[in-house]
Amino acid sequence: MNQPKFYIGIDLGGTAIKLAIIDDRGNIVDKSEEPTGRNGKDAVLDQITAMIDKLLKMNNMDMAQVTSVGIGVPGFIDWESGYVYELVNLKWKDVRLKEELQQRIALPVFVENDANAAALGELWVGAGQNARSLVMVTLGTGVGGGVVINGDVIHGANGMGGEIGHLSLLPEDGPLCNCGKKGCLETLASATAVARMGREAAESGESGLLHALLKSGQQITARDVVEAAAQGDEKSREIMDRVTYHLGWGLSLIANTINPDRMVIGGGLSRAGEILFNPLRESFRQFSLKRVYEACEIIPAQLGNDAGVIGAAWVARNRTMGE
Amino acid sequence: MNQPKFYIGIDLGGTAIKLAIIDDRGNIVDKSEEPTGRNGKDAVLDQITAMIDKLLKMNNMDMAQVTSVGIGVPGFIDWESGYVYELVNLKWKDVRLKEELQQRIALPVFVENDANAAALGELWVGAGQNARSLVMVTLGTGVGGGVVINGDVIHGANGMGGEIGHLSLLPEDGPLCNCGKKGCLETLASATAVARMGREAAESGESGLLHALLKSGQQITARDVVEAAAQGDEKSREIMDRVTYHLGWGLSLIANTINPDRMVIGGGLSRAGEILFNPLRESFRQFSLKRVYEACEIIPAQLGNDAGVIGAAWVARNRTMGE
Repeated sequence: MNQPKFYIGIDLGGTAIKLAIIDDRGNIVDKSEEPTGRNGKDAVLDQITAMIDKLLKMNNMDMAQVTSVGIGVPGFIDWESGYVYELVNLKWKDVRLKEELQQRIALPVFVENDANAAALGELWVGAGQNARSLVMVTLGTGVGGGVVINGDVIHGANGMGGEIGHLSLLPEDGPLCNCGKKGCLETLASATAVARMGREAAESGESGLLHALLKSGQQITARDVVEAAAQGDEKSREIMDRVTYHLGWGLSLIANTINPDRMVIGGGLSRAGEILFNPLRESFRQFSLKRVYEACEIIPAQLGNDAGVIGAAWVARNRTMGE
Repeated sequence: MNQPKFYIGIDLGGTAIKLAIIDDRGNIVDKSEEPTGRNGKDAVLDQITAMIDKLLKMNNMDMAQVTSVGIGVPGFIDWESGYVYELVNLKWKDVRLKEELQQRIALPVFVENDANAAALGELWVGAGQNARSLVMVTLGTGVGGGVVINGDVIHGANGMGGEIGHLSLLPEDGPLCNCGKKGCLETLASATAVARMGREAAESGESGLLHALLKSGQQITARDVVEAAAQGDEKSREIMDRVTYHLGWGLSLIANTINPDRMVIGGGLSRAGEILFNPLRESFRQFSLKRVYEACEIIPAQLGNDAGVIGAAWVARNRTMGE
């Protein structure tokens, strides 16, 4: 009988490192999380190594039981060589991540973009299971994307496949984006964008409910806007209409191009439920060709914060088989 | 030594049937063209069969030397079964094209969408050679698209992959599209759209040059607008600026999603040359992320009207190998 196979999945973020031991069927054996250290790249790599050791020990396992390691990172990479061009939030530039981590842990390491890893996690054991082609959209600080066709993510010419947060929707008069353009999808439909619109509505007094929150000393978050909309606050509903209008528009652009059978929406904002999904589906229909929207369902992600580590383990598992 | 292999490529259009005998390396041995018959589906299939017979005879060849047949059609199909849902221009609905043609010619037949066939033709022996991922854009009556990733076109969930003519750019106040929406890419950047804007400029007198053409009894075509712009006609230049602005915007949406290394522009309008390509590339840069546009070249198609028959032969060749 074959030995059972295990993989380590790592989700390296600007604020936290998430780690999990994952079996050959995508189940989490155990997981851990620590705040990302602030002492530079080498310290972070040491931290990851120590976290792996500790998690294995706690489960009475050792490195010999692990086939390979996958790591998802927030930035631009060359997935084939495991080279990191830049991780803005971690202030990393030009890191041979695959080699550096392999030197420390003596196991094959595979590197993936974090949004792609989340898409692969949902594909493997989440809301994307059995999809022929899948678009994963993460509504968080920005709008992240991962496009899966024929069982793997589309990396594209230089790893920029799925950078859907920067689809131009309102290039002339939309909000200014970090990328320098105006009216990118993520200035209109990210959690950050919802919070910004909520704050403006609170400051202007257009939303009494949000205005009261602000006066009580609270920061306005995307969740506040969603909750105010659910409670019938008119201005918050308008904000959600505006968000779903633009998100449905953006998704239609992707769908008319690659005709996926499923779109999975993740990130904090996706927990808004039907107050997000109903108008989103309607907007998507409005902007898409009939045969395109009829073939495509839009559903919430299932794995929450675990999508990244599970997807990283998928990468470890499937790219190991490919080598 | 192996016998040389040959394929028949067919490009079935609303106005013409194009046919070619093509060898295993994508070279055209001989080709023929006839106006598409107006007596319904069976007559058209008989016409195609007779055209194949005639072309083979003229080249002292027979069916035994042909491995298989590919046919590109202008409409919605199921490529795996070779079933045609609808060809609007030919008034076909629900046709088992693969079976019906196989009954007539006793060779394996493979069916593809015509825009996809053109993309595959350019990929095989035209401007798309050696591209890792390729988007073929045809600027004609509409705006057609074919997206090639990992060596084959993306068909999507129900054959709608690459329907980029209906990307919504100006959904609120753009021109009305045949699909019922407003401001689709093809209402802004097809040859038809250029001709429409030219006619408006001629009628209003905003373009003296086009106005004179119209008064001399000519219909204004896209070519007239391109030529007037080349001659320095201010209003025609404005039209070309507007066209390339929207086309570059549309291409950026595709590029930010799948990060191709090449975009190939075909169709009559692509023969405009640098008066189209220079501002198009500039507009594409303006709307795309830096790493995305740096990785992607935009170049003219090379095969002209032969792309369809060559691509259909590619389909015959490669899908035969797959069976």
